[in-house]
Amino acid sequence: MRPSGRQTNEMREISIETGVTMHAEGSCLIKCGNTHVLCTATIDERVPPFLKNSGLGWVTAEYGMLPRATNTRMRREAKNGQSGRTQEIQRLIGRSLRAGVDRVALGERQIVVDCDVIQADGGTRCASITGGWVALKLAVQKLMKAGDVISDPLIDPVAAISCGIYAGQEVLDLDYLEDSEAGVDGNFVMTAGKLIEVQMSAEGSTYTRAQMDALLDLAEKGVAELTAAQLAAVS
Amino acid sequence: MRPSGRQTNEMREISIETGVTMHAEGSCLIKCGNTHVLCTATIDERVPPFLKNSGLGWVTAEYGMLPRATNTRMRREAKNGQSGRTQEIQRLIGRSLRAGVDRVALGERQIVVDCDVIQADGGTRCASITGGWVALKLAVQKLMKAGDVISDPLIDPVAAISCGIYAGQEVLDLDYLEDSEAGVDGNFVMTAGKLIEVQMSAEGSTYTRAQMDALLDLAEKGVAELTAAQLAAVS
Amino acid sequence: MRPSGRQTNEMREISIETGVTMHAEGSCLIKCGNTHVLCTATIDERVPPFLKNSGLGWVTAEYGMLPRATNTRMRREAKNGQSGRTQEIQRLIGRSLRAGVDRVALGERQIVVDCDVIQADGGTRCASITGGWVALKLAVQKLMKAGDVISDPLIDPVAAISCGIYAGQEVLDLDYLEDSEAGVDGNFVMTAGKLIEVQMSAEGSTYTRAQMDALLDLAEKGVAELTAAQLAAVS
Amino acid sequence: MRPSGRQTNEMREISIETGVTMHAEGSCLIKCGNTHVLCTATIDERVPPFLKNSGLGWVTAEYGMLPRATNTRMRREAKNGQSGRTQEIQRLIGRSLRAGVDRVALGERQIVVDCDVIQADGGTRCASITGGWVALKLAVQKLMKAGDVISDPLIDPVAAISCGIYAGQEVLDLDYLEDSEAGVDGNFVMTAGKLIEVQMSAEGSTYTRAQMDALLDLAEKGVAELTAAQLAAVS
Amino acid sequence: MRPSGRQTNEMREISIETGVTMHAEGSCLIKCGNTHVLCTATIDERVPPFLKNSGLGWVTAEYGMLPRATNTRMRREAKNGQSGRTQEIQRLIGRSLRAGVDRVALGERQIVVDCDVIQADGGTRCASITGGWVALKLAVQKLMKAGDVISDPLIDPVAAISCGIYAGQEVLDLDYLEDSEAGVDGNFVMTAGKLIEVQMSAEGSTYTRAQMDALLDLAEKGVAELTAAQLAAVS
Amino acid sequence: MRPSGRQTNEMREISIETGVTMHAEGSCLIKCGNTHVLCTATIDERVPPFLKNSGLGWVTAEYGMLPRATNTRMRREAKNGQSGRTQEIQRLIGRSLRAGVDRVALGERQIVVDCDVIQADGGTRCASITGGWVALKLAVQKLMKAGDVISDPLIDPVAAISCGIYAGQEVLDLDYLEDSEAGVDGNFVMTAGKLIEVQMSAEGSTYTRAQMDALLDLAEKGVAELTAAQLAAVS
Repeated sequence: MRPSGRQTNEMREISIETGVTMHAEGSCLIKCGNTHVLCTATIDERVPPFLKNSGLGWVTAEYGMLPRATNTRMRREAKNGQSGRTQEIQRLIGRSLRAGVDRVALGERQIVVDCDVIQADGGTRCASITGGWVALKLAVQKLMKAGDVISDPLIDPVAAISCGIYAGQEVLDLDYLEDSEAGVDGNFVMTAGKLIEVQMSAEGSTYTRAQMDALLDLAEKGVAELTAAQLAAVS
Repeated sequence: MRPSGRQTNEMREISIETGVTMHAEGSCLIKCGNTHVLCTATIDERVPPFLKNSGLGWVTAEYGMLPRATNTRMRREAKNGQSGRTQEIQRLIGRSLRAGVDRVALGERQIVVDCDVIQADGGTRCASITGGWVALKLAVQKLMKAGDVISDPLIDPVAAISCGIYAGQEVLDLDYLEDSEAGVDGNFVMTAGKLIEVQMSAEGSTYTRAQMDALLDLAEKGVAELTAAQLAAVS
Repeated sequence: MRPSGRQTNEMREISIETGVTMHAEGSCLIKCGNTHVLCTATIDERVPPFLKNSGLGWVTAEYGMLPRATNTRMRREAKNGQSGRTQEIQRLIGRSLRAGVDRVALGERQIVVDCDVIQADGGTRCASITGGWVALKLAVQKLMKAGDVISDPLIDPVAAISCGIYAGQEVLDLDYLEDSEAGVDGNFVMTAGKLIEVQMSAEGSTYTRAQMDALLDLAEKGVAELTAAQLAAVS
Repeated sequence: MRPSGRQTNEMREISIETGVTMHAEGSCLIKCGNTHVLCTATIDERVPPFLKNSGLGWVTAEYGMLPRATNTRMRREAKNGQSGRTQEIQRLIGRSLRAGVDRVALGERQIVVDCDVIQADGGTRCASITGGWVALKLAVQKLMKAGDVISDPLIDPVAAISCGIYAGQEVLDLDYLEDSEAGVDGNFVMTAGKLIEVQMSAEGSTYTRAQMDALLDLAEKGVAELTAAQLAAVS
Repeated sequence: MRPSGRQTNEMREISIETGVTMHAEGSCLIKCGNTHVLCTATIDERVPPFLKNSGLGWVTAEYGMLPRATNTRMRREAKNGQSGRTQEIQRLIGRSLRAGVDRVALGERQIVVDCDVIQADGGTRCASITGGWVALKLAVQKLMKAGDVISDPLIDPVAAISCGIYAGQEVLDLDYLEDSEAGVDGNFVMTAGKLIEVQMSAEGSTYTRAQMDALLDLAEKGVAELTAAQLAAVS
Repeated sequence: MRPSGRQTNEMREISIETGVTMHAEGSCLIKCGNTHVLCTATIDERVPPFLKNSGLGWVTAEYGMLPRATNTRMRREAKNGQSGRTQEIQRLIGRSLRAGVDRVALGERQIVVDCDVIQADGGTRCASITGGWVALKLAVQKLMKAGDVISDPLIDPVAAISCGIYAGQEVLDLDYLEDSEAGVDGNFVMTAGKLIEVQMSAEGSTYTRAQMDALLDLAEKGVAELTAAQLAAVS
């Protein structure tokens, strides 16, 4: 029934390659099927002004898409400024990653996570969160190795997956074809078996609490698989 | 326990005054406690380019806040451009209202709903959706009275409410004091007993599915009260 | 002869309601007929850089219009930046209010007056000045009550009114219908029987000094009535 | 008493050199003392959208200042966008020139007048109007010579002059030193002995109707001299 | 003598991988040592307005750098707009590629080449031109296969290389360490043994014609190697 | 053969008038045939942040064109921001002038050179460099006269000229008619018989090293003539 022939509760193949750029303190290329996102983490010893002398660290994220990451070429954001969609996504990534960080343990420094979509086939914001956590973890490992951070501020991985109602059925990990047809879809960010963020939208449609529960069940399954891949990548 | 002395499942007082501006095709001033939003609906016989000759209508929304709607004066957005937060909110309002519209029945025209916050005390996006639906409904009534629309494209009200975990307890309809302390909060958009949008975020925290269910229960109660106020206002 | 049936030297009904928002240090909603402007005054203990350590205070103003304050919806300035007209108006409001302030008595602090047009029917800049002075006065009263300002820096009200030549006749207090037809119109800002600013423009037309004098006579009459309303509002 | 040693009713030396650029349909370099403005007029056979098929012509103006036209170098506007002051000035120039044009006789075409200040010493907006009219007239003469315009749409010159109260005395044609000290100053645009625009502002001060009348008397004298120079330049 | 231990006339290792993204009509990842650029070519059947109905094709280019492509993170251009440097580079890429295109044979369509630097170590603009030509060629091959283009509009490869004077000696293919120290450096774009563009700049220094000739000799050697790699990649 | 009737190696008439504005520390109006550029030099005792406490001086340049400097009116850059072309040109001017400055001798201060094109007929960037050096030299002479600079930081003039291949022949000093037809053209910046910058571009064409040499020969002849004019102007 799904265009890809996948089962309703079947994820796309996941791969996470680390150390893909020579300059960044942490980096990975995450592939969720045909969605490929390059994530880098940059350590900055200065924090934003509102945290000066607070002793607390900060994690923030920026998101971008190469113009031809998509089927039709998009206008380059450097020429037009960031769209509302882009800003919404990068706020979500930053908020999600921060929920999994012990900001006291990180110490008064900032880590900037850049998520740049090289190729898009649905689920780019979820892949950015999942890959972003890996880049972040690698940068933190570097800080710990150098003795700049003593107690690990990142215990449990943060991962995200999309689910939706496609052709009347609840399905896990929507690709672009499904996403563009789905009347209802959601993004679920989780860590250590708990929720960080749920965003479920209907476009020109509605959904019941029972449907929402079914999607949450799928999301839990998906996040478990992503978490395993994350842990394998950083160890 | 709540700063306002309200019960955990108690809404703030709601008032919806209609016909508050002489120019708009539909308008209301909605007050949810100390949060006051002026909503206007403008009928535009031209649709956006992607709907030309589709026979389908469109509803979109814009959101703003007067600089001193808040406790501390904010920089005027006309001087700086719309923030990411503003764009995120107005995309949510538009998407929510469209979910309750029969776009065939509306016919090929656009209605623009402007939601401008006169005074803010938490929950401005939810008040904008609830009040925006009233302004929209009044504009549609005008179209129907004039014979430009035959079958009502807006049957059930769309309303929204925020809930969150404040001081360890699930509470309904957060005001600003609660909102700025809550580790978890969500916005729930509903119509006719079904969900349109759920956005539940944790800032530096997490939540369980049980907590999410408790907030959904509260939201259902709140939306029922809002819906009653909406129906009273438009009849 | 006038669309509204008013005499040539007859003002629209004036009302000034104070204390209309909970957050601002001073506020009022001024209604000049169907023109409604919300004015707030914000006290800021920091002055602009060019006044640092000068001992002098500053008053500045910003002006905006809700998109559907007008008969046809205007594009939201937050999306496009402030127009030349908006900037011209807010410079006029600030200059006018400053002319009535003893900046030594105010002390080294800034008051920002925001004038936001809720509904427009001509004369919005004049209503903004007249209402802006009321909001400013209320904020100053708060400073004096707290003992932060000792000698009143605002003795005489500053008020403004428009006059013009409509259908060949000099008329007082143009509404939108008159304003859009008038070949000559002017804005007159006064305080204590003296002039602060005169702006008289002809669009595709000219005028004589005799006509200018007749408009000044009307303006003096109008400002006297506005001043009485201002004093009633702030006492 | 005046820094320049001029009488209170004495203008600076005026010179208007025409035909100063090879490309423009009309051009002049106007010098009012040390204030030098290059004015060019460009004929454009397309009118703005709101005049399509109206049979009416349009005149508009743009204003700029070279970065080092002033005593201290100003930031280049091309890097920052036009300031509120610049927009206010170019709106005034356009409005003033249009008041002296028979838009039916001009026919459905637009003339754009560019006024660029090469060297500034006070009174740049007035010099721009006076010189702008000369450039406009020369462009119209070209249209008439070519038979594209039959009846002259520009009969009487439009000219402008500033006056103000300097050191307690009414003076004509303020230079920069006077302008920066004057508590009250005004710009007066006239044609054929009638007024087009009066803008009289007080910065931190006020003025009486008697003072205003005295300045108008001075302005009439000044404009008469400018008009003579304009007519000499275009004949 | 060179930081990398290369001979003065020795290039970095070149690799060109094609078909690296699923959506673009042509794509490659070019690696010149540690400089990695992703190049995609997008076919657009619409040409820019100035070529409408001309029968001529167009090739244009855009250039970007991921924020952490460099040693220190750069601000994201989507947040700040394109810098002067970025615009200068993308104009050079477009001009260079067009010099190698038979625009009649291409037919009235546009090909947009996007060059996005994934990792930077000097010479990004040259790698963009060399890789951009490969992406362009692949897109053209697709057009020819589909019968949309009959005669090949791209005969000889266009390639570019940088040379400079480092530590007093002429060297080929500067990496970042050399580039940041070189007082003179140049970019040389060639095709079929001829020159398309020479840009030789001295920063705080000068150079003789003899030195320029020596750099041109090196550039010819380098371009020959690049051309071989390009031809291997596209066949 | 040339539209102007000039020999292939014949320059346009050069004139350099100094002291043309009263405010700038150095200024000239340079005319290369019908290309007229006003150049001013402003001394600023503050250097850019990256040079604070370095003891080194800085020279930078900005470039602009009046809207009707060209045959067809261009949009005013202040309304749109600087184009890529403008930024490219002003970077070239700054780089070129710096190559001729002893930044230690200049001392820790900045000189800003503004080049504004009053009338354009090809070669505006070259005229800007040549005239910019004169303005710069005059400002430096002022600093030396005041004893603020002891040893002359500007020994040899920096000058620039364009050459190109027009109608198959190498020609010196292209005017607009030639420039818009030339398939190959270059800008050559020189000082003291050495090169600072060579930019040779082909638009839809290529060139040989022999052609490049011929253009360099022409450029050397032209620069010698410009240098003589510069030295005459500043002595």
